[in-house]
Amino acid sequence: MKHNFGAGPCILPQEVFKQASEAVINFNDTGLSILEISHRSKEFEAVVFETESLIRDLLSVPSNYSILFLQGGARQQFAMVPMNLTREGERMAYLDTGSWASNAIKEARNIGDVEVVASGKDNNYTSIPKTYHIPNDAAFFHYTSNNTIFGTELFDVPNSPIPVVCDMSSDILSRKIDVSQYGLIYAGAQKNIGPAGLTIVIVNNDLLGNTGRTLPAIFDYQSHIKAKSMYNTPPVFSIYVAMLNLRWLRLKGGIEEIERENIAKARKLYEEIDRNPLFKGPADLEDRSRMNVAFTMEDPSLESEFLALATERDLVALKGHRSVGGFRASLYNALPLSSVHLLVDVMQEFEEKVKK
Amino acid sequence: MKHNFGAGPCILPQEVFKQASEAVINFNDTGLSILEISHRSKEFEAVVFETESLIRDLLSVPSNYSILFLQGGARQQFAMVPMNLTREGERMAYLDTGSWASNAIKEARNIGDVEVVASGKDNNYTSIPKTYHIPNDAAFFHYTSNNTIFGTELFDVPNSPIPVVCDMSSDILSRKIDVSQYGLIYAGAQKNIGPAGLTIVIVNNDLLGNTGRTLPAIFDYQSHIKAKSMYNTPPVFSIYVAMLNLRWLRLKGGIEEIERENIAKARKLYEEIDRNPLFKGPADLEDRSRMNVAFTMEDPSLESEFLALATERDLVALKGHRSVGGFRASLYNALPLSSVHLLVDVMQEFEEKVKK
Repeated sequence: MKHNFGAGPCILPQEVFKQASEAVINFNDTGLSILEISHRSKEFEAVVFETESLIRDLLSVPSNYSILFLQGGARQQFAMVPMNLTREGERMAYLDTGSWASNAIKEARNIGDVEVVASGKDNNYTSIPKTYHIPNDAAFFHYTSNNTIFGTELFDVPNSPIPVVCDMSSDILSRKIDVSQYGLIYAGAQKNIGPAGLTIVIVNNDLLGNTGRTLPAIFDYQSHIKAKSMYNTPPVFSIYVAMLNLRWLRLKGGIEEIERENIAKARKLYEEIDRNPLFKGPADLEDRSRMNVAFTMEDPSLESEFLALATERDLVALKGHRSVGGFRASLYNALPLSSVHLLVDVMQEFEEKVKK
Repeated sequence: MKHNFGAGPCILPQEVFKQASEAVINFNDTGLSILEISHRSKEFEAVVFETESLIRDLLSVPSNYSILFLQGGARQQFAMVPMNLTREGERMAYLDTGSWASNAIKEARNIGDVEVVASGKDNNYTSIPKTYHIPNDAAFFHYTSNNTIFGTELFDVPNSPIPVVCDMSSDILSRKIDVSQYGLIYAGAQKNIGPAGLTIVIVNNDLLGNTGRTLPAIFDYQSHIKAKSMYNTPPVFSIYVAMLNLRWLRLKGGIEEIERENIAKARKLYEEIDRNPLFKGPADLEDRSRMNVAFTMEDPSLESEFLALATERDLVALKGHRSVGGFRASLYNALPLSSVHLLVDVMQEFEEKVKK
């Protein structure tokens, strides 16, 4: 068995893979593959209904928020959010905490006027800016809760006089959140939810329909709300597998239990990074991500040897993002604590080896 | 075994389901699920490369055309086509041949000025308009090659003084086409290509980048061409299964062979509809679709009884679209001729039964 520390898409529990594999042959004893059933069939409507209910329950989503199953990933939301939430000429406020936040800003600028309230760029995104002013005449304030590449995470919702929009692609469902503090949350599914090709949007209905813009209907959240995420043919398989994964999460004890485990996994690994003289973590202590642990070596010339040893021990996809180098251990929900223990063992084994 | 006459998503050969099911557990002997590998891995890059090559070979796509793997279905193309191909204020020409063509027109009107050159609406879309004028100052001429709901199909490319854009969602890869006659072809995958959640676009590169519009980058074909369909995380599983299905098609003998089979399947069923006094087909003879055979009964009160008999014989998803009633037998590539023979047998059995 491989221990997959990859940053996505998408790490899921083995039992989910097993159930998904079976449904590709015979879904729900229909004698048909999950890939060939109609998205309008009552069987698939039940899948969509259950998936939505599971998200609503697990995250305690208030009843005036819609939950949508869309396509196009967070990148498409980078455009849809400004299109749906701003009037012509109205500005938007963004916090720049890393590569994905910057991409969101760049796309928003194709639609309107963006004020970047603060940026971590000058310190290479190793810490999250804490002091900034959010203008109260902007349409919304946007931030990225977890930065996969630099390994930082923002746990508290910034205090904002305007609706908060959050790209939660890489830490949604990993910890407790209070949805009512957000105007809109979006997430590409391919980390903690399900296979690539599905995007979740959770939006306060009151924010919609107020911009006076004529949007293409496909890019208007209201089309999808009205059609219960069936405005276009939904990504049937990705939704089905997301449902299986959400069932697994509920059975495991829900958000409370997974957060406890995620804290334990991250603590274990950061403790070793701080203790082991060969390794170091670039992110500020208070901003360290629980989902993506970025770390490097004091002596970069040892990196390839360490990676080879880890691979030999079936620990895979530990290479850091090409833009920062070093290593990245992604500790998404489905990665068990035992895999982190193994990684720590290998770090210690390598320390001994280097000493000799 | 069930015989699936459903209109999608998506009918695929049994061996494709089997291979897809296995890859959900162990992809290419990596020890990892196809759902958890990185879309940036060399293994997945090989999948994208092979899928593109297969489409290029099967349809003889010229080298100055790009092949893109996108998301959002044909509905998203209804918006992206006008956004990418028209200057501000420039009009577009559309042929209205059915429900999906009308939807494309409705969405295009959210972006610019549309001239409908002809419409089959007055005769309830049972025939395809033949005489109309395409204005040579419009940006493009758009039509829908196959109308799934009304069961009509347009086999010849209309003679057009401007670039032709075709929604080929439901008959792409079912018959020979000359790609060079089109400016742009798009297709939701969920009929003859692969699972829902994937959209194929084939576009003449020369048509792009000439509008002077600032588009959100995610909706600009050029972003996706430049990033080789990796501008955002692609729908990994859907692309993989499409590749398996395209391999199956090539092995079977390619487009020439599948077209021969599709002609045989459609002919067999239409012959029975024309012969059997209980049934009739509303579409004009010359416009009959090979992909979706819509038919009704002379005595509508017998319909539920016939449907029950078909279901008893494992012929499923034969109910007509809610907007037209009756029956619809979708004869996509993966449906074998033997399933059509069974359907014809049941139609004859029912005829005998009614006689008694």
